[in-house]
Amino acid sequence: MAFRAIEWLDDSDTLQLIDQKVLPQQVRYLELNTTAEIARAIHDMTVRGAPAIGVAAAFGILQAARSFADAPAEEMQSALQQADAVLRASRPTAVNLFWALDRMKAVWADATDPANLPAALHREALAIEEDDIAVNRAISAEALKILPQKVTFFHHCNTGSLATVDLGTALGIIRSAHEAGHEVFAYLDETRPRLQGAKLSSFELLEFGVPHAIVVDGASAHIMRTQDVDIAVVGCDRVAANGDVANKIGTYNLALAAADNDVPFYVAAPMSTIDFATPDGDAIEIEERDSAEVTEINGHAIAPPDAPAFNPAFDVTPNRLIAGIITEYGIARPPFTDSLAAMRTAQQNALKEDV
Amino acid sequence: MAFRAIEWLDDSDTLQLIDQKVLPQQVRYLELNTTAEIARAIHDMTVRGAPAIGVAAAFGILQAARSFADAPAEEMQSALQQADAVLRASRPTAVNLFWALDRMKAVWADATDPANLPAALHREALAIEEDDIAVNRAISAEALKILPQKVTFFHHCNTGSLATVDLGTALGIIRSAHEAGHEVFAYLDETRPRLQGAKLSSFELLEFGVPHAIVVDGASAHIMRTQDVDIAVVGCDRVAANGDVANKIGTYNLALAAADNDVPFYVAAPMSTIDFATPDGDAIEIEERDSAEVTEINGHAIAPPDAPAFNPAFDVTPNRLIAGIITEYGIARPPFTDSLAAMRTAQQNALKEDV
Repeated sequence: MAFRAIEWLDDSDTLQLIDQKVLPQQVRYLELNTTAEIARAIHDMTVRGAPAIGVAAAFGILQAARSFADAPAEEMQSALQQADAVLRASRPTAVNLFWALDRMKAVWADATDPANLPAALHREALAIEEDDIAVNRAISAEALKILPQKVTFFHHCNTGSLATVDLGTALGIIRSAHEAGHEVFAYLDETRPRLQGAKLSSFELLEFGVPHAIVVDGASAHIMRTQDVDIAVVGCDRVAANGDVANKIGTYNLALAAADNDVPFYVAAPMSTIDFATPDGDAIEIEERDSAEVTEINGHAIAPPDAPAFNPAFDVTPNRLIAGIITEYGIARPPFTDSLAAMRTAQQNALKEDV
Repeated sequence: MAFRAIEWLDDSDTLQLIDQKVLPQQVRYLELNTTAEIARAIHDMTVRGAPAIGVAAAFGILQAARSFADAPAEEMQSALQQADAVLRASRPTAVNLFWALDRMKAVWADATDPANLPAALHREALAIEEDDIAVNRAISAEALKILPQKVTFFHHCNTGSLATVDLGTALGIIRSAHEAGHEVFAYLDETRPRLQGAKLSSFELLEFGVPHAIVVDGASAHIMRTQDVDIAVVGCDRVAANGDVANKIGTYNLALAAADNDVPFYVAAPMSTIDFATPDGDAIEIEERDSAEVTEINGHAIAPPDAPAFNPAFDVTPNRLIAGIITEYGIARPPFTDSLAAMRTAQQNALKEDV
């Protein structure tokens, strides 16, 4: 792989990120040295993708701990609390952010030996990073069990190596199918307003030699009606306990296009994106972003001056439109309240066996 | 109105068009002096919108007749045949183009007095132009009968003054409701790839002071789920005899978003767009356009170099998703095979009374 989206440079306490705002025209790396810089990178989508955001936030906590390594225990606790709050405020919709911060907090909140904290937090951040890679591989392995030899995908947004530490979730499945010898073709929603499909997913699939075509978001129903499409697969920012899925704006529309054309619609979801505390999609806060994301593209105005725009960044796909939720513990099927709870039990049993 | 999309300048045999490719950043007029120039303007979407295309084509025939006014009758017939063929080839999906050319051909094909032909074709082209304005007014009047006082619309593409001679079809309804004192708000799909909603419909609604917001095409289902939307209304390029509707790509997706959220979905369709010779949507040819419309915006690349794209320009919305088709003779309701045929009978009776 010619790029790595996210990497911790331990010698310099630096988080190195590929700048997703200038891809694919430039491959530029940024070096972030403070928690505040990481929070800003999450907010302005220099780093994006629910799993990648979680990992970035974990290293943001590590940076705070390293900065206060020589300070009294109380000062370090205070610094970690502040870092935790700043990072939690950076994006409201993705649950991995909170999940990763919760894992880090379990290490620092009741630390009895502050001197060991930086080392312990370093281990946990690396574990979150490694878990992400392992989880993505497991999700792809589960998906491969149900794919035909010749398979045409429909995909939304970017859910590949750039959205995770490596491989990716939904785009990882597409790449894995190609590498496993399936005859793969993928239609990629360009995914307005930020064009992650056109800019990032196409960039990744070109890199890995996977045949594909970028399409405008409005074309999905027509293409499913007139071309052979076997499966639609997307990632997610948060899955409610009942299987409602919050994901990039346009996901709900794609799910409707799939449903109307009998194309099964799957969601690739690490267990860390399943939020059992959220009963259904109505309880998920939807981030609204700057209207300039709609009225300008790459800094160029496309609408009249002062034209009003409305820019909800995510939507909720109702569980009734979803054929399956692919996790690292298997594919949950409707009714999801039961099947997702069963996945959680499987996860808890697996973690017990690990101990 | 500060702009006029299409105007015949009789002294100079010139068709003056507003250049829709540079709106809204520039309001620039083009003067077209030959049939070939008009055909090219239709093909490259300098002029667009099914009704405006029909009117432009009619004046293209007039130009050919004027150029050969002093030629022998056979030469003029040959020139008109050639002009007719060139204009018919300029866009395959919009049926108004063929309808307007048929009206012109009825004048020239069996002309017994070639000397009078330029004058007769001039009258017919002006009649097509005037009919368009009258038809649009009648469509708005029919729609106003069913609108609540406070009404929130969802709209796709551009169907306003820029797509017609004046007022427009679906956007004409929105403007008419505003001018009739309804409390109007309109969500405008930006309508990728060519962004007619963001560029043209917003430009028109700003001009007429109609409150609105541009949204990305993928946001419609989410907005209908979370905001109060009363009605979705679109124009069309062709309606089949069974009520299937060919229109700008993304219309089918919008209709699915509306259906899933119990928002009635209406199509504003002059009788000239209803093609009784086409039994259903499967028989409508869908134009595919250059992939650069997807991978570039305003000449700026948004995708990696050589990224593949697929660009169907229209789609077909199945009649089962449509609440009503608003014509100048009333609103056709399902089942459309019967109700559209009844509209045609009403039209034929009205034309008989006119004679």
